[in-house]
Amino acid sequence: MDLAHQIALMGRQACAAARQLALLSSHQKDEILLAMARALEDQAPQIVEANQRDLDAAAQKGMANAMLDRLRLDPAKVFQIANAVRKVASLPDPVGEIISSWQRPNGIQIEKRRTPIGVIGIIFESRPNVTSDAASLCLKAGNATILRGGSEAFHSNSAIAAALASGGATAGMPEGAVQLIPSTDRDAVRILAESDDVLDLIIPRGGKGLIQTVTRLARMPVIKHYDGICHLYVHHDADPVMASSLTLDSKAQKPSVCNALETLLIHRDIAPSFCQIALPALARAGVELRGDPAFCALCPTAIPATEEDWSTEYLDLILSVKLVTSLEEAVCHINTYGSHHTDAIVTSDSSAAEAFLDAIDSATVNWNVSTRFSDGEEFGFGAEIGISTERLHARGPMGLPELTIYKYLVRGDGQTKALNSTL
Amino acid sequence: MDLAHQIALMGRQACAAARQLALLSSHQKDEILLAMARALEDQAPQIVEANQRDLDAAAQKGMANAMLDRLRLDPAKVFQIANAVRKVASLPDPVGEIISSWQRPNGIQIEKRRTPIGVIGIIFESRPNVTSDAASLCLKAGNATILRGGSEAFHSNSAIAAALASGGATAGMPEGAVQLIPSTDRDAVRILAESDDVLDLIIPRGGKGLIQTVTRLARMPVIKHYDGICHLYVHHDADPVMASSLTLDSKAQKPSVCNALETLLIHRDIAPSFCQIALPALARAGVELRGDPAFCALCPTAIPATEEDWSTEYLDLILSVKLVTSLEEAVCHINTYGSHHTDAIVTSDSSAAEAFLDAIDSATVNWNVSTRFSDGEEFGFGAEIGISTERLHARGPMGLPELTIYKYLVRGDGQTKALNSTL
Repeated sequence: MDLAHQIALMGRQACAAARQLALLSSHQKDEILLAMARALEDQAPQIVEANQRDLDAAAQKGMANAMLDRLRLDPAKVFQIANAVRKVASLPDPVGEIISSWQRPNGIQIEKRRTPIGVIGIIFESRPNVTSDAASLCLKAGNATILRGGSEAFHSNSAIAAALASGGATAGMPEGAVQLIPSTDRDAVRILAESDDVLDLIIPRGGKGLIQTVTRLARMPVIKHYDGICHLYVHHDADPVMASSLTLDSKAQKPSVCNALETLLIHRDIAPSFCQIALPALARAGVELRGDPAFCALCPTAIPATEEDWSTEYLDLILSVKLVTSLEEAVCHINTYGSHHTDAIVTSDSSAAEAFLDAIDSATVNWNVSTRFSDGEEFGFGAEIGISTERLHARGPMGLPELTIYKYLVRGDGQTKALNSTL
Repeated sequence: MDLAHQIALMGRQACAAARQLALLSSHQKDEILLAMARALEDQAPQIVEANQRDLDAAAQKGMANAMLDRLRLDPAKVFQIANAVRKVASLPDPVGEIISSWQRPNGIQIEKRRTPIGVIGIIFESRPNVTSDAASLCLKAGNATILRGGSEAFHSNSAIAAALASGGATAGMPEGAVQLIPSTDRDAVRILAESDDVLDLIIPRGGKGLIQTVTRLARMPVIKHYDGICHLYVHHDADPVMASSLTLDSKAQKPSVCNALETLLIHRDIAPSFCQIALPALARAGVELRGDPAFCALCPTAIPATEEDWSTEYLDLILSVKLVTSLEEAVCHINTYGSHHTDAIVTSDSSAAEAFLDAIDSATVNWNVSTRFSDGEEFGFGAEIGISTERLHARGPMGLPELTIYKYLVRGDGQTKALNSTL
C-alpha cells in the first residue's frame, strides 16, 4: 500500500474517532489518559530499547552530543512523560463550557458552546516526548491526532505511540484517536499538509525550516510557533536594581528558549546608573554584549552590533543593546525589529507603562516582569502545546481551551423567518 | 511598476496603517466611518457612472440577467451601502475589551485584552457592495484591508474605494487603511495569497472555485465560507404543523442562500401525518422533491433521488427527502453528507433534542427553529462578514469580535523566574 493511500485510511479512522471523542465525558477521557500513563510505565523497557536503536543510528550518523541528549530516553524520563499525561488528566476539561448565551426578541435562545476542533496533525522534530505531550493534550480537548515525528526518533516515537494506543484501548479510547505515521518517508509531510479533507488544523513543532515548509504546503489552518526576538526596554525612571535583575533573568536564566531576551533598549538618561549595576552581573553570567555606538561608548567590552543583530534570535548568552532617547523610539524599534512574541518595559511610571502596553504589538507585553514568564505554565494553564505567533485563533501561550472551537445551539418553539408562513 | 512590486508597496502602507488603527479610539473610528458614508452619498453620481461602464462591458460579454442585477447600482443602492457603513459605526467596538484577567501566586497580574488582527485581505467576486461592507467592518475592528474585487465590477469597486479613502481621509483615517488593488490582473490573487509578510488573514468571498484557489495558494490563515448543505430532521413526536411550517420556511423563504434547507429527513412513523400537511404547502411554493424509495412511495410526484443529491447544495426550489427509522440514523446521515453549516431537529422531546444538539457536528444546530436563522443579523451581531465553515478561530456567523484577536498584558513589580536572581 502506498503512503498516500495509507495516510488516507488513517485519516478516515481519525475522523470517525474524532466524532466519538467529541461525545465522551470528561471522566471517560481522564480514564483513557490514566490508562495511557500506566501503559507508558509498563512499556518503559520497550520504549528505552527502541530509543537505544535511534541513539545508535544517530551516533553512527555523527549526531552532535546536544542533539543526542534531546533524543535520549531512560526509564526516569519515560516516567516523567507518563506523569505529564497524568497532569493533563487532572486539568479541567474545556469541552462543553457555555461560552455565552442570550435570547433574541423573537424568543430564540442562542448558546455558544465549546467543542473540540476535530482532527489535528502534529509534525515535530527530534524530541520523542512530543508524541505523548501533544497527543494527550489534544485528546483531553476531544481531538484526534495524526502525528509525524522526526526520522531520527522514529523507533522511540513508535514505541511511545504503541503504548498510548494499547493503554488507551483498555479504557475505551476510540480506535484511531491517536495515530503515528509509520514511515520515515519525507513525503508524509506533504501528503498530510494537503489532506484538508481530514485535518482541521496542523501544528508544526520544530525549527523555522519545518514551519515554513508546512506553511507553504498546508491547505488547512496552521498554528505556528516562530522565533521570539524579545526586548526589554529600561525607561528613564526605572529602578536600576529591578531593571538589572529583570535583564539578567530575561537573558540568562535559560537563554535557549523563545521567551529569552535578545535585545535590550536603555533610555539614554538612565544608562550610566543602570550599566553600573547591570554590566557586572551580565559579565559574571558570561553574556556577550553587542551594542550600538552610544552603548559601546559606555561599555568598552561591547562588540559593535550590525544591522542583522537587531533581528537575530541568538538563543545563546549574547545580547544586543541600544540606547534610545524616548519611549516612542523604543516602541518603534520593537515593532520594527521584533517578532511580536514577548516584550517588556521597566518603569515606575504607570502612564508610561500603559502607553507601552498599548503600543507594543506583541502576544505578551510585560511591565516590570521578566520576559521568561510568557509561558503556559507560568500563566497557570497547567500545560501548553506551545506559544503561538499567529494572529488568528490563538496568540501567545496555548493551553487546552486553545485546542477547542465552539458551536451555536439555537432553541425555539417554531420560529420562522417569514412572518406569515402559511401552510 | 510591476504588480508584485505594487502590491508589496500597498502592503507596507497597510501594515503602517494597521499599527495606527490599533491605537484609535472608538470615537475616532466612528467619525471615519461616518465620513466614509457621507463620501459615498456625495460621490453617488460618479459611482453610478462607473457602474454603468461595468454594466455595459458585462452586457457586451453576454452576462446573464441575474448576474447583471447583482452588479447593478443605482443611487438608492449607493445610499443603502452608505447606511450599512453608518450601521457599522453604531455597533459596539470590540477592541480593548478585557476578555479575562487573573493573578498568579507570585503576584503577576495577567490581562487578556482584545486587539485588532492587523491586515486582512478580502478577495471577492461580483457584488460591488462587498468593497464597502468588508472594509467598514474590518476598520471598525481596527484592521487595515487590502481588497481585490472581481474584474467585472472593477470600475464600480474603484469608485467605491475612492469614496471610502477620500471620505476617511477627511476624518483622519491613516493612509493605506483601506486599499483596493488597482488592477484586474488575475495574478493579483496569487501574489496576495503569498504575501504572508503583509496579510495576517485572507477571506475569500465567492464561489467554491475562488475559495479553493485561495486556500491552495494562501500562506496565511484563510477563513472560508463554503456551502451550506443544511438538513431538517422531523422526529416521530414532532408537531406536524410546526414541522411543516419550519420545512417550508427553511426551504422556500429564500432558497438561494447558504442557510436554506437542502435535505429533509423524516422519521418513518410521522411521515404520513407530516406529509399530509407539508406536501401541499411545498407544492404551492413550487418545490421539486427528490426522494429515497420510501419517500417516493408516499409521494408519487417525487423524483427518485440519486446518491449525488444527498451532497448537493441546490440553492434553488429543490429538496431531497429521505425517511429514517431513528434519530441516530438522521445524525449519521447529516454528519456524513452535510457540510457542517446548519442543521435542525423538530421534536417535542427535549432529551431527543439535546442528543441531536450534542451529536450534530455543525456550526449551528437548531431545535424547533428554521435553518434560516443561522445568520449574524438574526443572532444579534448587527452585521456579519460571513458565515464561517472553519473549525478554527471563528465558526458560524461572524460579527465584529470575530475580526479581532487578543494580547496578554502582564504587570508585576520585578518578578524574576530565577528565585535567587543575584546581581
